[in-house]
Amino acid sequence: MTFTEFRPLDEKHLTEYIKATPALSGKVGNSFDDLKIKEVGDGNLNFVYIVVSPAGSLVIKQALPYVRCIGESWPMTKERAYFEALALREHGRLCPENVPEVYHFDRTMSLIGMRYLEPPHIILRKGLIAGIEYPLLAEHISSYMAKTLYHTSLLYRTTTEHKRDVAEFCGNVELCRLTEQVVFSDPYKASQYNRWTSPYLDRDAEAVREDNILKLEVAELKSKFCERAQALVHGDLHTGSVMVTHESTQVIDPEFAFYGPMGFDIGAFIGNLILAFYAQDGHADQGNDRKTYKEWILRTIKETWNLFYKKFTALWDEHKDGSGEAYLPGIYNNPELRQLVQKKFMQDLFHDTLGFGAAKMIRRLVGVAHVEDFESITDSSKRAKCERQALDLAKMLLKERRKFQSIDEVLSSILQQQ
Amino acid sequence: MTFTEFRPLDEKHLTEYIKATPALSGKVGNSFDDLKIKEVGDGNLNFVYIVVSPAGSLVIKQALPYVRCIGESWPMTKERAYFEALALREHGRLCPENVPEVYHFDRTMSLIGMRYLEPPHIILRKGLIAGIEYPLLAEHISSYMAKTLYHTSLLYRTTTEHKRDVAEFCGNVELCRLTEQVVFSDPYKASQYNRWTSPYLDRDAEAVREDNILKLEVAELKSKFCERAQALVHGDLHTGSVMVTHESTQVIDPEFAFYGPMGFDIGAFIGNLILAFYAQDGHADQGNDRKTYKEWILRTIKETWNLFYKKFTALWDEHKDGSGEAYLPGIYNNPELRQLVQKKFMQDLFHDTLGFGAAKMIRRLVGVAHVEDFESITDSSKRAKCERQALDLAKMLLKERRKFQSIDEVLSSILQQQ
Ligand SMILES: Nc1ncnc2c1ncn2[C@@H]1O[C@H](COP(=O)(O)OP(=O)(O)O)[C@@H](O)[C@H]1O
Ligand SMILES: Nc1ncnc2c1ncn2[C@@H]1O[C@H](COP(=O)(O)OP(=O)(O)O)[C@@H](O)[C@H]1O
Ligand SMILES: [Mg+2]
Ligand SMILES: [Mg+2]
Ligand SMILES: [Mg+2]
Ligand SMILES: [Mg+2]
Ligand SMILES: [Mg+2]
Repeated sequence: MTFTEFRPLDEKHLTEYIKATPALSGKVGNSFDDLKIKEVGDGNLNFVYIVVSPAGSLVIKQALPYVRCIGESWPMTKERAYFEALALREHGRLCPENVPEVYHFDRTMSLIGMRYLEPPHIILRKGLIAGIEYPLLAEHISSYMAKTLYHTSLLYRTTTEHKRDVAEFCGNVELCRLTEQVVFSDPYKASQYNRWTSPYLDRDAEAVREDNILKLEVAELKSKFCERAQALVHGDLHTGSVMVTHESTQVIDPEFAFYGPMGFDIGAFIGNLILAFYAQDGHADQGNDRKTYKEWILRTIKETWNLFYKKFTALWDEHKDGSGEAYLPGIYNNPELRQLVQKKFMQDLFHDTLGFGAAKMIRRLVGVAHVEDFESITDSSKRAKCERQALDLAKMLLKERRKFQSIDEVLSSILQQQ
Repeated sequence: MTFTEFRPLDEKHLTEYIKATPALSGKVGNSFDDLKIKEVGDGNLNFVYIVVSPAGSLVIKQALPYVRCIGESWPMTKERAYFEALALREHGRLCPENVPEVYHFDRTMSLIGMRYLEPPHIILRKGLIAGIEYPLLAEHISSYMAKTLYHTSLLYRTTTEHKRDVAEFCGNVELCRLTEQVVFSDPYKASQYNRWTSPYLDRDAEAVREDNILKLEVAELKSKFCERAQALVHGDLHTGSVMVTHESTQVIDPEFAFYGPMGFDIGAFIGNLILAFYAQDGHADQGNDRKTYKEWILRTIKETWNLFYKKFTALWDEHKDGSGEAYLPGIYNNPELRQLVQKKFMQDLFHDTLGFGAAKMIRRLVGVAHVEDFESITDSSKRAKCERQALDLAKMLLKERRKFQSIDEVLSSILQQQ
């Protein structure tokens, strides 16, 4: 059997495919009798197979030409796998500690072979729901974001490199359009796909659709998303795109990658931690009131931003005489000015982060795709109470983001509201 | 003779070329005995030939693989002709009244055949130096800018169209880099190419290189220039890229075209009018004190912005239910909100315009390429006095641009300083 044309794989054909592909068959020790294959895709879009043999393991991810959770009625280019592979490789090169290795990519088959993130790795969102602390999470994710965002921006690259890569990732337009729709548009209008915890949040969802100031602000963020090619962003960096153990943090699933605003990634991650925070009251029980855990989440939010700030500016300082074309050494190499420039850059980025983070929160509360953090709260009145708090905070953040000077002030707002 | 490989043309080969090219030979009535050919390129980069026969006329513009005014020591891709032709055609489609028709483009030869803008058309800058009023200039140029910028932005286009065109124009990277260097970098550092009216402006040029706040602000503008794909901009819209008569306004030379911030074009034009204003005192003589003319220039600046504002928002209103993806009708179609959104958009654009306009002024006073408005003032102490006023205004505008609410306030600042 050859695979010269696209076809959706099943477990039988998957074995054939691995046999025929040296880069993959080597990973399972070239023995195919004891292969265990399991489809585990719990995501919204694609099929993911875990392949394990006594000699080794790997993961196969395949994109089909539609949105998995909706079906063939919502077509979506399978070329997204190409951009996912490109981003995995680029981010993996920049931050190998936190990105699974790509063993193989097949554009015809829209298929990626990559490292299996073996147990006890679990999806971070599930760990957050279970109330598990990850002491190294902020340290790791801040490194990942600082390294990937810094090195793909004009702080590090030349205009020539930048425009070449921007042009390439313009090809991932269908995925960008999907984000535009579900993050920046649908929540702010009547849409058949929107959902919320009804009837409790009916008025809240309506209020979002009628809030002129909110719509004004979300338009500014959308225009940054569509127009500002600041760095190669992951594009979908929520807590369901991160797998963790106590020692390891791995970022998967960058199929939405493109050159966009850095704050979109940082905001996605922080916004989803804030969602996890607000969901905790719904998971509290007699054995665990989740109070300590909520404090850990807030601490992790704070450390994520502060460590990102530190690492990003450290990279900037380190490469200040490098070939990055944004701030040429001949102009900006005086310490006072560099500090001034960095402070302004980081403050703008902070405000973008809060804005995009808030927009990502809102869309998970009144848009098409919700998060398990809340969905797993079975008592819907309890769930609605948690969700409303999250929504109120997000709306305030989106509108008032420019007033915040530090992440501490954001945490204070959250605590005051409790 | 065939032209299957690139070769720089001279007058003899030009005739051969026209003979061999039906789209061109038709324009001169297929008679080649009385062809008059004249090289008139007074620009910095390319060769321009006017071809006239009793039966008709045309212009041939050819790009050579270097910067004309410097020579082969400054290489520059001849592919710029491809982007110029692309932009001429796109802008011509959107605003045929103000863009010369393209008859022919030859990518191999980096050669454009276009309409000859016959006398009395002259370069606007020369008209401004001569003190000639053009009563329709603001009306025409505001139409050109409103039409070309609106229709190539996400206000009018879909994301799919936008990203396709952004990717294409990423190819014009060498010209973008040239702008980055000469507009946003060289004036703010010691550079072998920088010039100014010495010794008068020695301290002023040094002050530009030592002004931290100015460098902070110019960095923000540069980042917008490099990262923000807002619309297809002309990229070099100074008064030397506009040919005029009393009735006609024609925009030529968009070889720097790319998807960038709209304010870069509007600022280029307005900034160059402000330069023309400050140069007037150097052209005053006993016969003409240029007072009335200075008032006309200020009026033209004011009308250019105000008419642009009116026409741009009128296009926006007209197409509010169209397929533009920035502000979806389902979200933004309530009159109060649309007004709010437009006001914010136009205010941001105004501040960009002032910032880019100021940066374009500064680079013409202390950078590599100066403008004839000042260069033609032979008395260098008089010239320096005019230039210093322009420089002071530009520095203030660049730093304080966000404080200005209207173009009237800008004109007041200019008048106060006089
Ligand atoms: N490299 C991997 N190792 C282990 N599990 C993985 C790996 N990649 C994906 N998975 C599992 O498959 C699920 C879906 O993968 P994901 O890349 O997020 O797909 P989708 O694009 O459909 O969201 C993840 O939530 C995770 O449980
Ligand atoms: N279509 C035209 N009709 C008449 N003259 C033209 C035309 N195009 C260019 N010119 C003349 O040639 C000069 C240089 O053309 P331009 O396109 O500005 O070249 P460059 O890119 O070298 O600046 C212009 O200043 C103008 O005098
Ligand atoms: Mg996923
Ligand atoms: Mg995915
Ligand atoms: Mg020119
Ligand atoms: Mg030119
Ligand atoms: Mg801003």
